[in-house]
Amino acid sequence: MANPFFKNHGPFKILDLIKILKLKDLKIDYDLDVSDIKDLYSSKKGDITFFHSKKYKVLAQKTNASFCITTENLKDELNKNCIPIIVSNVLVSTSIITSKFYPESLHDNFDDKVDFIDETKFKNTVKFGKNVLIGSNVSIGINCSIGHNTIIEKNVSIGDNCSIGSNVVIRNTVIKKNIRILDNCIIGKHGFGFFPNKDENIRYPHIGSVIIENNCEIGCSSTIDRGSMSNTVIGENTYLDNQIHIAHNVKIGRNSIIAGQVGIAGSSILGENVKIGGQAGISGHLKIGNNVEIGGGSGVIKDIPDNTKVMGYPAKNFRDFLKENR
Amino acid sequence: MANPFFKNHGPFKILDLIKILKLKDLKIDYDLDVSDIKDLYSSKKGDITFFHSKKYKVLAQKTNASFCITTENLKDELNKNCIPIIVSNVLVSTSIITSKFYPESLHDNFDDKVDFIDETKFKNTVKFGKNVLIGSNVSIGINCSIGHNTIIEKNVSIGDNCSIGSNVVIRNTVIKKNIRILDNCIIGKHGFGFFPNKDENIRYPHIGSVIIENNCEIGCSSTIDRGSMSNTVIGENTYLDNQIHIAHNVKIGRNSIIAGQVGIAGSSILGENVKIGGQAGISGHLKIGNNVEIGGGSGVIKDIPDNTKVMGYPAKNFRDFLKENR
Amino acid sequence: MANPFFKNHGPFKILDLIKILKLKDLKIDYDLDVSDIKDLYSSKKGDITFFHSKKYKVLAQKTNASFCITTENLKDELNKNCIPIIVSNVLVSTSIITSKFYPESLHDNFDDKVDFIDETKFKNTVKFGKNVLIGSNVSIGINCSIGHNTIIEKNVSIGDNCSIGSNVVIRNTVIKKNIRILDNCIIGKHGFGFFPNKDENIRYPHIGSVIIENNCEIGCSSTIDRGSMSNTVIGENTYLDNQIHIAHNVKIGRNSIIAGQVGIAGSSILGENVKIGGQAGISGHLKIGNNVEIGGGSGVIKDIPDNTKVMGYPAKNFRDFLKENR
Repeated sequence: MANPFFKNHGPFKILDLIKILKLKDLKIDYDLDVSDIKDLYSSKKGDITFFHSKKYKVLAQKTNASFCITTENLKDELNKNCIPIIVSNVLVSTSIITSKFYPESLHDNFDDKVDFIDETKFKNTVKFGKNVLIGSNVSIGINCSIGHNTIIEKNVSIGDNCSIGSNVVIRNTVIKKNIRILDNCIIGKHGFGFFPNKDENIRYPHIGSVIIENNCEIGCSSTIDRGSMSNTVIGENTYLDNQIHIAHNVKIGRNSIIAGQVGIAGSSILGENVKIGGQAGISGHLKIGNNVEIGGGSGVIKDIPDNTKVMGYPAKNFRDFLKENR
Repeated sequence: MANPFFKNHGPFKILDLIKILKLKDLKIDYDLDVSDIKDLYSSKKGDITFFHSKKYKVLAQKTNASFCITTENLKDELNKNCIPIIVSNVLVSTSIITSKFYPESLHDNFDDKVDFIDETKFKNTVKFGKNVLIGSNVSIGINCSIGHNTIIEKNVSIGDNCSIGSNVVIRNTVIKKNIRILDNCIIGKHGFGFFPNKDENIRYPHIGSVIIENNCEIGCSSTIDRGSMSNTVIGENTYLDNQIHIAHNVKIGRNSIIAGQVGIAGSSILGENVKIGGQAGISGHLKIGNNVEIGGGSGVIKDIPDNTKVMGYPAKNFRDFLKENR
Repeated sequence: MANPFFKNHGPFKILDLIKILKLKDLKIDYDLDVSDIKDLYSSKKGDITFFHSKKYKVLAQKTNASFCITTENLKDELNKNCIPIIVSNVLVSTSIITSKFYPESLHDNFDDKVDFIDETKFKNTVKFGKNVLIGSNVSIGINCSIGHNTIIEKNVSIGDNCSIGSNVVIRNTVIKKNIRILDNCIIGKHGFGFFPNKDENIRYPHIGSVIIENNCEIGCSSTIDRGSMSNTVIGENTYLDNQIHIAHNVKIGRNSIIAGQVGIAGSSILGENVKIGGQAGISGHLKIGNNVEIGGGSGVIKDIPDNTKVMGYPAKNFRDFLKENR
C-alpha cells in the first residue's frame, strides 16, 4: 500500500541512494529503480527495506524487498532474492534514505495551511465549536462533532459517529467509526525517535500514521505518536483513560482497557483484551499477549505470554508479587 | 438535595423501571412513584438506590431509599423498609436506571451552547482574556479572572476571588472561593467508568460533580473527573501540582499537598493534611487516613490508617521501606 | 546580573526590611541600602541573601552578600563580611523580603496585556498560526514559527530558528536557538513552592526564569516551571519526550535524553549526557552526575555519581537491580 499521508518523492535509482550513503564498489546493477522504503514485512518487489537486529531474522528470510540496508554480520540471514546494502549503522542509513523518499515527514512544525471550518466543505455536515481549524487532505464522516479550538491538521480521516473534544490537535491519523477523542489530546505527532549526536541530535523521519479502530475512547490530555516506519494502532473497542502516552509504532489489540497515566514505549505490541492499571509502564519493543492483566504501577520490562496476570516493578507473576509483599 | 447540574427526568412508576430491566413477577405495588436515583447514603424516601458489595452493608442497613437494586445474596443485609429489586448485575442495572433519570449525563460531547464572554452578563464583572467561552447555567463571583481560550461549559459555579488560567476546560463543577486553576486543566469530564463489553463497551452515566473547596490551587495540565453517583471533592486549602489525575468520586480532605504527576484512582477517600510525593499512585476504593504521608513514587494498594508515613510499591511503613532499602 | 524579567522595586533601607520581618534590637547600621535579594552564590556586595541549611555552608562562607537571613544555629558558618539577620524561619522570611523586592512574581494570573500577533511588530518576521497572542517584553529571532492558539505571555525571549507548536503557553522564559517546543507545553509558570499553613497556604515568589539552551526539543504536553530564586535550565541539545514535568530550579546538563512521563522534582541538578527512561522520577534537591543512565520507571531518592547506571525504586546499581530481579 502506498503511504496514505506522506508524498513519496521516489522512485530513485539505487545508484542515487548508494551515493547518499557514501558507499562504493557494490557489485550490483546501479541502474535499478527503487520505488519505496518499507519495513521487512510490508516491502514489495522494487522496494528497499532495513534489517538491524537478529530479532527480525524470520521476517528477513521472507521479505519481498529487492534491497535491504543491513550489516556484514546480518546479511546472510536475508532472503537470497534481496540485495544487501552493507552499512556500518543500519538505522542512521535507513533514516537518511527515508528522508530522501519522504522529506516532509522529518519535522512537525504547525500546519499553516488550515482554514476555519466554516470556510470549508464541512460547514454543513459537521457539528463544530468556535475556532475549529481544518487542514488539507482531511475527510470527516456523518454525524460527527468537533469541539472548540480543535485543530485537525493535514492528513486526517475521521469516520462516522465520532466525537472530538476541545483543544485537540490531530494530524496523520485515521480515526474510524464511533470514536470519542476527549479534550486536549495530541494525536499523530512524530515519535521521540532520533539518533543521539553530540551538540546536535539527528531526527529520523516518521512516515507512519496513527490508526484508531472503531468504538474506541481516548481520554483527556493523552498523547499518541505516529509510527516511524509502521503505524501506531489502537484496536477496536479499546478505551484509554486520561493522561496516557502511547509512543510510536505501538500496537494495542481489541477490547483492551488502559487506566490513567499509563505509558507504553515505542514499538511494543499488545494483544487483545489487555487490562492495564493506572500509572503502569511498558518498555519498548516488547510483546504482551492476549488476555494479559497488568496491575497499576507495574513496570513491564520483558514479554508477557497470553492469559497472564502480572504486577510489580519489574512486573512478575501476580501471585508471586502478592506472596513477596504480604 | 436535587442534582444541581443534570435534569432529573423522573419521577417514574416503579413498573416502568422494572420493565426496562426486563424483570418480572415482583411482588410489589407497581404503581409506586420513584423520584430519583442516589447512593445508599444520600437516598431519601421515594428514591431508588443500589447495593452491590458487602463492603457497604452498614450503609445498606441505614438507607432511607424506598427501593434498592441488589442481588439475591445481598438482599437480606438491606434495611427492611427498602424494597429489594433483584438483578443479576447490580452495576449494569443501576447504569440503565440512571440513564433513564439523567439521559444527558451519559456522554460528554463538547458544549455547543456557549457564547463568547463579551456577549454575556459577565463582560463587565469578570477580567477575561481573548476567546473565552461561557456555557449556560454558569455563575461567577466578584474579583475573578479567566485566561485566554478557556472554555467554561455548562453547569459551573465559580465563587469570589478565583483565577482560572488559559486553555482550561471546565464543566459540571463547583469552584468555591479564592481558588487558582492553572493553565490547561480539564475539570468535570465524566470518569473512566463503563462496563466492558466485547465489541462495544457500555458507558455508565456520571451524574456527580466536581467540588473544589475554598483556597485550593490546581496545577497545570491536571485532570479532575466528575463523580458517577456521588461527587469528586478537593478539600479546602489543598494544593495540587502539575499533571495530576484525580479520578471520579475521589474525595481529598483539607490542607493536603499533592506533588506532580500523582494519580488517584476512582472512589478513594483521603483524609485531611495528607502529603503525597511526586508520581505516587493510589488505587481505587481505598481509605487514606488523616495526617498520612506518602513518599514520592509510592504505589498505595491498601487502606492507610491515620498518622502514618508510607513509601514503596506496594507502599509500606516508611521505616520498613528504609530498612529494606539500605 | 539584574533580574531579566521581574522589576526590582528596591533598593530598600535594611531598616525597612527588618521592620517587615518584625525583628528588633539588631546591632547594625539601619541606614544601609539593600539592592537586591539573591542566592548565596549569586549575591553581590549590597545584596541580601539567605542560608537555611548546613548543606550550603561552603557557599555561605564564600558569599559576597552584605546581609543574610539565617538562624542562630547557622550564623557562625557565614562569611564574616556578611551581616546575619537572625530569624526563626529562614524560608518564610526570605519569601516576605522577596515579595517586597518583586511583588509581581507572586501570582501567575493570565497575562491580560497580550495582543494578537498580527497587531505586533512580529507580523512580518514570524510565521504564525491563527489566534496567536504576544505579551510585552517579548523578542523573537529570525526563521521562527508559532502554532495556532499559542500564547507567548510577557517576558519571553525566543532565538533564531525556533519552532513553537500549537496551544502552548510560555512566560518568563529564555528560549535560545534552533529549539522545538511541541504542542500543549506550559513553560515558565511559577513552581509548586509555598509554605503550608492551616486554612490558607502562603505562596512564595518565583523570581527565576526558565532557560532552554540551543538545539533542544521539548515534547508535547510537558510542563517546565520557572525557578524560585535561581533558574530552571535545560542544557544544550537535550531532548524531552511527551508529558514530562520539570519542577522549579531544576538544571539539566547538555546532550541528555529524557523519555516520556518523567518527573524531576524541585532543585535537582543533573549532569551532561544523562539518559532517563520513561516514567522515572527524581526527588528534589539531588545531584545526578554526568553520563548517568536511569532505567525506565526508576525512583531516584539519592545522589548518583558520574558514569553510573541505575534502575529500581529506590534506584540502585543496575547490576544489583538485575541480580535481585532475575
